[in-house]
Amino acid sequence: MEIDLPEVKAEVAAAFAGYEAALIANDLEALDGFFRADGRTIRFGAGENLYGIEEIRAFRLGRSPVGLARTLSHTVITTFGRDFAVASTLFKRVGDGGRVGRQQQTWVRFPEGWRVVAAHVSVLSAGMP
Amino acid sequence: MEIDLPEVKAEVAAAFAGYEAALIANDLEALDGFFRADGRTIRFGAGENLYGIEEIRAFRLGRSPVGLARTLSHTVITTFGRDFAVASTLFKRVGDGGRVGRQQQTWVRFPEGWRVVAAHVSVLSAGMP
Repeated sequence: MEIDLPEVKAEVAAAFAGYEAALIANDLEALDGFFRADGRTIRFGAGENLYGIEEIRAFRLGRSPVGLARTLSHTVITTFGRDFAVASTLFKRVGDGGRVGRQQQTWVRFPEGWRVVAAHVSVLSAGMP
Repeated sequence: MEIDLPEVKAEVAAAFAGYEAALIANDLEALDGFFRADGRTIRFGAGENLYGIEEIRAFRLGRSPVGLARTLSHTVITTFGRDFAVASTLFKRVGDGGRVGRQQQTWVRFPEGWRVVAAHVSVLSAGMP
């Protein structure tokens, strides 16, 4: 299995950047298009556990569009073969007191394109054993 | 791409269960064997961001072995083709006040076996936009 084939990595990087732009703009249609429309798609958010695309869509529809701007750092995208990738990044939201967020996504290439099949967003916390 | 092929799913479920047993026992050698020994392996823990197998190993060596017991729920393993999988689960630690933990792992099959290439553990929190 070839890891980090440049052309595959470029594809995933473009999808990742597209998702980020849609997130900051709260472009619900675009955001929805990046997640696989399937009952097995899972998104753990900072404050919610969403199982299946319907729960993910309901969350996005109800989310405040205010304060979504953020800056990324330590972004690492790694591809495995031609159809599988993981993307990890840290982020800080504007005016959020310096809290460090973490986002990790698993991307799979389907006939319709690259889609997120699992995602986990959280805030770095202390005191958890 | 075939999703959730039974024999593939069984392999990943076995690996997932083996990791869980090693975690609760704090079996450092076994735990280390489940994560791909590579600088690109990433583990976001509840209180730490670990980039690369060396940071992951250092964290495990320094971790208290006390209070690691936990019970899982809402575990979902989904496989994509024969070499890729994601595993998501919720967990509660004994005596941890009912806090809900979330764990998500991306597994890849290498010649040496199934290995975690990315993992993210966090506690459900409130107040994050």
